[in-house]
Amino acid sequence: MLKIDPDRLLNDLGHLRTFGATGPGVVRLSLSPVDMDARRWLAGRLNDAGLSTTIDGVGTVFGRSRNAGPALLIGSHTDTQPTGGWLDGALGVIYGLEIARALAECEETRHFAVDVASWIDEEGTFSGFLGSRSFVGERVDEAIGSARNREGVLLSDALKQAGLAEAPRVRLEKARHKAYMEPHIEQGGRLEAHGKSIGVVTTIVGIRELKLRFIGQRNHAGTTPMSIRRDAGAALVAFIARMDEAFRQLADADTVWTVGRIDLDPGSFSVVPGAADMYLQFRDASAGRLRAMETALAALIRDFNAEGKVSVAMTDSEPPEEPVMMDAALQAHIAGAAEALAPGQWERMPSGASHDAQVIAHHVPACMLFVPSIGGVSHDFIEDTADAHIVLGCEVAAQAAADILRHLAGQSPR
Amino acid sequence: MLKIDPDRLLNDLGHLRTFGATGPGVVRLSLSPVDMDARRWLAGRLNDAGLSTTIDGVGTVFGRSRNAGPALLIGSHTDTQPTGGWLDGALGVIYGLEIARALAECEETRHFAVDVASWIDEEGTFSGFLGSRSFVGERVDEAIGSARNREGVLLSDALKQAGLAEAPRVRLEKARHKAYMEPHIEQGGRLEAHGKSIGVVTTIVGIRELKLRFIGQRNHAGTTPMSIRRDAGAALVAFIARMDEAFRQLADADTVWTVGRIDLDPGSFSVVPGAADMYLQFRDASAGRLRAMETALAALIRDFNAEGKVSVAMTDSEPPEEPVMMDAALQAHIAGAAEALAPGQWERMPSGASHDAQVIAHHVPACMLFVPSIGGVSHDFIEDTADAHIVLGCEVAAQAAADILRHLAGQSPR
Repeated sequence: MLKIDPDRLLNDLGHLRTFGATGPGVVRLSLSPVDMDARRWLAGRLNDAGLSTTIDGVGTVFGRSRNAGPALLIGSHTDTQPTGGWLDGALGVIYGLEIARALAECEETRHFAVDVASWIDEEGTFSGFLGSRSFVGERVDEAIGSARNREGVLLSDALKQAGLAEAPRVRLEKARHKAYMEPHIEQGGRLEAHGKSIGVVTTIVGIRELKLRFIGQRNHAGTTPMSIRRDAGAALVAFIARMDEAFRQLADADTVWTVGRIDLDPGSFSVVPGAADMYLQFRDASAGRLRAMETALAALIRDFNAEGKVSVAMTDSEPPEEPVMMDAALQAHIAGAAEALAPGQWERMPSGASHDAQVIAHHVPACMLFVPSIGGVSHDFIEDTADAHIVLGCEVAAQAAADILRHLAGQSPR
Repeated sequence: MLKIDPDRLLNDLGHLRTFGATGPGVVRLSLSPVDMDARRWLAGRLNDAGLSTTIDGVGTVFGRSRNAGPALLIGSHTDTQPTGGWLDGALGVIYGLEIARALAECEETRHFAVDVASWIDEEGTFSGFLGSRSFVGERVDEAIGSARNREGVLLSDALKQAGLAEAPRVRLEKARHKAYMEPHIEQGGRLEAHGKSIGVVTTIVGIRELKLRFIGQRNHAGTTPMSIRRDAGAALVAFIARMDEAFRQLADADTVWTVGRIDLDPGSFSVVPGAADMYLQFRDASAGRLRAMETALAALIRDFNAEGKVSVAMTDSEPPEEPVMMDAALQAHIAGAAEALAPGQWERMPSGASHDAQVIAHHVPACMLFVPSIGGVSHDFIEDTADAHIVLGCEVAAQAAADILRHLAGQSPR
């Protein structure tokens, strides 16, 4: 009978937490000395678990099972946000370590191959998803030569500093890697609000990020009557109200949009703003709805400009990220394990956050499992999850992993 | 017959413009080397006009007529905004110079006393209205010991650098200074919009300046459903809409309010803002209306907080500036001169901007005269006024000055 060891799991998570510990949180930025210490510790633990482990040429820790494939790859990341929590990323990697050990300790599953990865820089300290992108064969050398962290350090220099510049890069083995699983904390409050313990991810949402600039006329705030003002800030505020209304018409319960930043120019008490910038992001699990929101936004911009007093234009946008579906068969394995171990305590849900799984899913069938975040908080020192949820999540992931590997091996699920 | 010399007036304005000329605009910050050069040039011109001239211990250039009082004091400022126009302040000072010359050249008025001032730092490079405040006897030594410019230079050090630290300070002479006149560009677009050439100022508006802080909950912009968000930025936007509606109910055509700056915290695409700051200013010529707007704002804040999701509080405010009435008899002299020289081309109006006149009016009957600003623009390099308007404004100011001095001397107006 497959059994994880809850104490060993929690101890390893607790030990990883000590690298870069800052109050209850963690500061362990990609390729920093403390991140490299954590990577070397992790490599040691994976080696102890019997995996053949390396830290590759971009910094990814990769533990390869000594068993023949087909293999299930389990991964996430051990580096953190600038003011990160202890579980964001770390949970999935240590789940992989524990699942590899648990499978090896069980007579029926000891021949299964689980490879474990801690992908470098999911959070984008230098270049987001660097490890998973490199792994699936995307070209990353340009990013390595040009990306810098907030301190201005070049990624290529950071890799040299870490002694990795000459190390080989781990690559996806198409014949071996037949499935990818990424367990993660939810980073939102839905499971908690619904009283559930496990989330089975259906889709990683798509994202649009863009900047709108309103151009009016800078003027003296005392001498310019309201009637003749062309106040770019007031126009921005009015635009947001219309946009909210338009997006509400299109949204379902999971659609989100955020104005995260507003800059008024010149930004003083006494000057009617002549220009105003608005930073807008919206996310949805449906590619069609994202396109409908883009269309609605374009119509709003057109109408606004037709009215004339203040103009608005999109001045910048990130490349669109389309929603990524999780593999249906893999979802079913997680759902089956969840129902077996925690009947009625799980639900299907989209992931509102980005994950390495969205990179890998384009090359290998992929799935994700969520455990609840207390108060829905993440990317914050106080991010946390109840021990019982951490343990249950690992039990569900382990059982799903075994089922997936049985299925890959041509066996019927237990 | 009193006659100004248009060429001399425009030449002096043009020469003053060369000090700190930057494109069409001027950068001549208080007590900077170029500002001191301009002050020394001005002192020379005032001396040439027969006035006894000094640069006083705070930097004010003061030309005192050698005639006995009662005297009309004419003043404004020759220092500028960081990116200033060539007429803001300069116009009133050079009008004073030209009027002193014109009166001296006319047999009937040569015994009249016109004193001319360029008050230091109306614009607040170090400490707003420093010159006029010092002149009327307000305590300015604390400001001199503590105020700094944007480069961090202490006002007391700047005065030392300018060689003024030991110079005596010019003070109001109650027995001599019986009226104050400050000609100025309008800095708004009303005269132009109405096709008028002269504004007779009724009131310098009162000002309220305050900062509101909205506190919500910072959260992940991807994983936090709209329904449970406590978005401080969205709350701020909603608040502005309500405030606009409330203020519109109270406003007349001259009431103005401006949200000049908005800061969302932390200010990134991916984070629901947890806090938001709004910088609000409102101005009106009526003290009662300003109080009504304050009351309405307090009620909005109370109602907003009663709804609960995001709180709002006033976190900072400047001391209120109450409206300052211009002297009715002096207004009538300007109106009379305007009607004589430009029949039907003048109107009464409040000043939406602040001026040294509001400091001096508490001690001496004061008046202001406006000429049109092209496009209503000021505090900008492109600030400008048609030569014809500059000349007409000086003619009206000169005739009003003569009428005021005749009246002060107990004579009936011409």
